Amino acid sequence: MRKEIMEVGGQLVPYFRTPEFSEIMLDSDRLLKKFMNAGRDAQSIYLTCSGTGAMEATIMNCFTKNDKVLIVDGGTFGHRFVDLCKVHGIPHDSICIRFDEILTEKHLKKYDNKGYTAVFVNIDETSTGQLYDIKIISDYCKRNDTYLVVDAISSFLIDHYDMDTYDVDATIISSQKGMCIAPGLSVVVLSDRIVRERVKKIDIKNLYFNFNEYMKDFERGQTPFTPCVGICMEMNRALNLIEEMGLENLLMSIDKVAKDFRKRVKELPVTIPAFPLSSAITPIIFKDKIAKKVFNILKDKYDVYVNPTGGDREEYVLRVAHIGDTTIEDNKMLIDLLRKAIKEAKS
Amino acid sequence: MRKEIMEVGGQLVPYFRTPEFSEIMLDSDRLLKKFMNAGRDAQSIYLTCSGTGAMEATIMNCFTKNDKVLIVDGGTFGHRFVDLCKVHGIPHDSICIRFDEILTEKHLKKYDNKGYTAVFVNIDETSTGQLYDIKIISDYCKRNDTYLVVDAISSFLIDHYDMDTYDVDATIISSQKGMCIAPGLSVVVLSDRIVRERVKKIDIKNLYFNFNEYMKDFERGQTPFTPCVGICMEMNRALNLIEEMGLENLLMSIDKVAKDFRKRVKELPVTIPAFPLSSAITPIIFKDKIAKKVFNILKDKYDVYVNPTGGDREEYVLRVAHIGDTTIEDNKMLIDLLRKAIKEAKS
Repeated sequence: MRKEIMEVGGQLVPYFRTPEFSEIMLDSDRLLKKFMNAGRDAQSIYLTCSGTGAMEATIMNCFTKNDKVLIVDGGTFGHRFVDLCKVHGIPHDSICIRFDEILTEKHLKKYDNKGYTAVFVNIDETSTGQLYDIKIISDYCKRNDTYLVVDAISSFLIDHYDMDTYDVDATIISSQKGMCIAPGLSVVVLSDRIVRERVKKIDIKNLYFNFNEYMKDFERGQTPFTPCVGICMEMNRALNLIEEMGLENLLMSIDKVAKDFRKRVKELPVTIPAFPLSSAITPIIFKDKIAKKVFNILKDKYDVYVNPTGGDREEYVLRVAHIGDTTIEDNKMLIDLLRKAIKEAKS
Repeated sequence: MRKEIMEVGGQLVPYFRTPEFSEIMLDSDRLLKKFMNAGRDAQSIYLTCSGTGAMEATIMNCFTKNDKVLIVDGGTFGHRFVDLCKVHGIPHDSICIRFDEILTEKHLKKYDNKGYTAVFVNIDETSTGQLYDIKIISDYCKRNDTYLVVDAISSFLIDHYDMDTYDVDATIISSQKGMCIAPGLSVVVLSDRIVRERVKKIDIKNLYFNFNEYMKDFERGQTPFTPCVGICMEMNRALNLIEEMGLENLLMSIDKVAKDFRKRVKELPVTIPAFPLSSAITPIIFKDKIAKKVFNILKDKYDVYVNPTGGDREEYVLRVAHIGDTTIEDNKMLIDLLRKAIKEAKS
């Protein structure tokens, strides 16, 4: 988190049913849509909930038991779409991608002309770090005339992302990733098409997640229920900081740090995956079962946090984030600490 | 908001999948349950959402179409329970309380032995300021053997509140009221009875609001989805500050400020309601249609915020909050500003 964001966090949270707060929300919305190249008529839903809440809300508002959904299931977060479809009784199939497998056109071709009405994908599968090729997914959707729902939570404002070019119908993001602000706020940006054809027609059996209520209130920059006002203030500061520095410059700077880390990490007795990686994180793979040990040494001895990995790879993989104000100096330091921690974990 | 809380808001939001964060959550939970005198086996659900989200989640996890619910509907928030029951197809009846009417035992007696399985009440109906007598509601529930669900969002840590004595089965609170921290976090505290008889047995068609998932993870002080970590940190500081000063002292101090305001406001050409009031707010009633005008003068000219009132009384009623670090000096100042604003609004 940047100093400028922490300053916002340390300020009084304002009363929000005012034209002043509405202006702030509308300003954030303008920037957010610009940064993701959302269509002119795209509409945003500002939800106080985690990314999973926003994924579930999107499914509830846009799909029914009459749909047939294709899910790219290549890790924990891809699989969450499967769980959500099960809970809501949405017929679905999964393209299962193994940890070391790259999603290619071949995977998708098999599902041509099978009557799917939507594709769900976590464009950066956060649990493995694979950044899927949105072009091949978008091409599939165009030739099969299906909706495209993208969870861009751990990719937006980190990797290039473009709703309009790739005809994305719903983009789901969360505050704590690319924006580098506190968690608690999630946003769903909807294409005009999905709003007209789905959201306005589906009778959702839920009040808190009813997108029609949110769209109505957002015409005046408000939300139907009390939002996480403090995080909304942080969002506005974060988006304006990005506007000042330029989105391209931000993406280049994260990319540079990620590439530098990936070059340096070769000095260590670890490997990194061969698939395309998001600039958000680099997974590092150990030969021995020491991932948890290394995590704890870094945390307890050096007060440095990397991300553990769940599931059957938890003893072998750690993930290193490159977002926020991480620098090349930090990379140097982390490589040194990793070297020490690995040595200690093995001894 | 207190200075100590704003300091927490200005700090780096920590990574949360750690034993350290779990300890903080468990410490908050211990204090929260102590302050509401929850039963020994009560369980808490920490949700990243607004109070409405928590109300809806409680209904979804604890009640079904086979129930019959009695709702105290005396304003905007009481009526929200009605809306939620409609959305979820829960059979329900309402005790409608007019703005100037006091809820008494007579209202409830009419509904004796009618087969209700639960009573829903906003113990302080925030939109009118009426603090209902929990004893008569609790007595009704005991003699009719129904569950009692209390929205205590605008009352807990402001008025006396006691789950165990009044056999409350679910208490719903939100971060931005009595705790005086940023909005975005809501908590549901459940009795052992409702957990065993309802939550564990109901097959909820929702993932984000599935209480069983939250209970399982909270055994180790965690939540199934990313929580609003920053607000959780503020909660811990707020509850520890209350523990240091003593809950009784906090309640007495708010009560003193509320009573002082109510005494002073008699100098102005306004009236206040005759019904029992929560110490949270005092509604002030104007003879003329000037409430919105007065609100705007206070906001634009003096940068002072009072609460407008929605619905058909919006031109006649404003509500003044007494929570946070409001003092008797603030009361004096506000009375002076109100006097000026009323004069200006009428001219």
